[in-house]
Amino acid sequence: MEKLKKEQKPIPAEGAAVLAAASVVGHKEFEGPLGPQFDVHDMSDMFGEETFEKAESEMQREALSALLGMAHLSATEIDAVFAGDLLNQCVGSAYGLSEFEIPYFGLYGACSTAAEGLLLSSLLVSRGAAERTAVVTSSHNAAAERQYRNPLEYGGQRSPTAQWTVTGAGAFLIGHAQGKRLADVAEVFPGRIVDRGVTDLANMGAVMAPAACDTLLRYFAATGLRPDDFDLIVTGDLGFEGISILGELLEISGVHVGERLSDCGVMLYDRERQDVHAGGSGCGCSAIVMAAHILPMLQRNELKNVLFLGTGAMMSPASTRQGLAIPAIAHLVRLRSPDGGGKGEA
Amino acid sequence: MEKLKKEQKPIPAEGAAVLAAASVVGHKEFEGPLGPQFDVHDMSDMFGEETFEKAESEMQREALSALLGMAHLSATEIDAVFAGDLLNQCVGSAYGLSEFEIPYFGLYGACSTAAEGLLLSSLLVSRGAAERTAVVTSSHNAAAERQYRNPLEYGGQRSPTAQWTVTGAGAFLIGHAQGKRLADVAEVFPGRIVDRGVTDLANMGAVMAPAACDTLLRYFAATGLRPDDFDLIVTGDLGFEGISILGELLEISGVHVGERLSDCGVMLYDRERQDVHAGGSGCGCSAIVMAAHILPMLQRNELKNVLFLGTGAMMSPASTRQGLAIPAIAHLVRLRSPDGGGKGEA
Repeated sequence: MEKLKKEQKPIPAEGAAVLAAASVVGHKEFEGPLGPQFDVHDMSDMFGEETFEKAESEMQREALSALLGMAHLSATEIDAVFAGDLLNQCVGSAYGLSEFEIPYFGLYGACSTAAEGLLLSSLLVSRGAAERTAVVTSSHNAAAERQYRNPLEYGGQRSPTAQWTVTGAGAFLIGHAQGKRLADVAEVFPGRIVDRGVTDLANMGAVMAPAACDTLLRYFAATGLRPDDFDLIVTGDLGFEGISILGELLEISGVHVGERLSDCGVMLYDRERQDVHAGGSGCGCSAIVMAAHILPMLQRNELKNVLFLGTGAMMSPASTRQGLAIPAIAHLVRLRSPDGGGKGEA
Repeated sequence: MEKLKKEQKPIPAEGAAVLAAASVVGHKEFEGPLGPQFDVHDMSDMFGEETFEKAESEMQREALSALLGMAHLSATEIDAVFAGDLLNQCVGSAYGLSEFEIPYFGLYGACSTAAEGLLLSSLLVSRGAAERTAVVTSSHNAAAERQYRNPLEYGGQRSPTAQWTVTGAGAFLIGHAQGKRLADVAEVFPGRIVDRGVTDLANMGAVMAPAACDTLLRYFAATGLRPDDFDLIVTGDLGFEGISILGELLEISGVHVGERLSDCGVMLYDRERQDVHAGGSGCGCSAIVMAAHILPMLQRNELKNVLFLGTGAMMSPASTRQGLAIPAIAHLVRLRSPDGGGKGEA
């Protein structure tokens, strides 16, 4: 198949922008270095609910509600919402968003879901199929642990390469690139499934780094752009282990990214002070870091040209027990400061 | 919120068409009334694999492979694939489609996934964001039973309202409405989440019928069209129980659909001869019936103007154990015979 390969081109999304973003987090995220930047937090991680799963839905509800409040919009003014989470059958989203009665597209992209939603939303808005869409994603540490691994009460020891599933939800409003906004979407580049044979459930960074590398190298090849055309290349969420593997994979391929490369799961916690091993992960991780930290920096023109790579590990406990390796994906969204930032043509 | 409601409009998808479709089925589907119309079948339901989950992935692989063969295309000529299934973390799709290396969008819409994929694909093609996309969805009876209910070996008795999860995968090629094709996509109308409080895991028809009714009534209200503007209004998959509830809900609302209303889960099996209780369901059900039966009838101009409503129950065993009702959704895709069929403007 390699020989016949037609080179994948980025898809222009001119005219689409991230108009607003909201973030809802648990106690550990609030206690981290980005704590004061989040919109809503709950030190109990329960958000007034009785179960972790319901708490996750409630975070989604609060994130979308906060987003609509910021933008002074009612739910009926949103043409569609793209949503997803890590719970089986994506019920965090289905229960969390039902009361809004917005046309709903359920996504499953594991930790890449926020990027997948931004990508599809930007295309619909850019091409006139929607005026305004929302993207909402979430994860909850305790809900994810008991679904994917063991209930927290089990007290299993964590591997140094294990990432910490974020308790948080992020929401984004995508609309036309006019007036006050956080960032413009220049173009998007959807990822493909990459399976390099990694079976270690406690090393998602190693699973996802090759997917991020695949998307990034193909994007640079297709556009002629280079790392130094960007202020920041931010993955979400490779963690400390994965970002180091990605740096090495790129270096081997002759691409030097240096200090420009960072990761939402690395930024979110203070590794020295907080017990998070390889850093954050989960559908909520890149969502809250982009919403509360990266997009506001683009708005303030402190960043001008950013590549956001949402990385996901399609990790199913059932398949792993059946001896299968873990497939991964990385979707790319190119963001620009609304103040005309950004080198290179899109 | 009701008072502020802005009426949702259908989104035009002119210029997009279903160019080809492929279907892969198990033994029970092959033995049903549509048996000879399917492209590939395996009487063992295992497709050469060792587990039901791997068999499901293999069905997806075979469906997409058959589709590419029919269309004389290589995988590199497909700009994106939209895919999903019922397995936790949608691994049926992730494993089944990874070797094709096509940019991948994971969806979760339960049994509405085929419609969700057709809807998003049609918009991307219609609006010039993609030349050609594929949609692939699947379900496997034995994999679904052991994940959602009990392993088949348990021999649990089935309720009369329970539907039979289809063993099958369907694949669709969406591209520009030129030359030989199965059907044109006129417009789409995404559904919203509808939760009417039904908690019965053995009655998905009752869960989904209100969602189908919601989408259909709002579509008729928004367009001014009526049931007799269409040759067929086909849901996928309400089954015998759900289609009867939908008929009653519509009748109560003053909309008489009569014989025009049918359901993929009803058409697929011979209820008298096959032990399927309330009919077929699962992400594979509407996919194979649309691919093998309905779309070819549109191509032959035996049907001119069809409303396809993909219905999904966001049913998670974990949430149901926590006492939550089951949310549902119905996405609408309006299809036209390529030979200029179809009354009413789109």
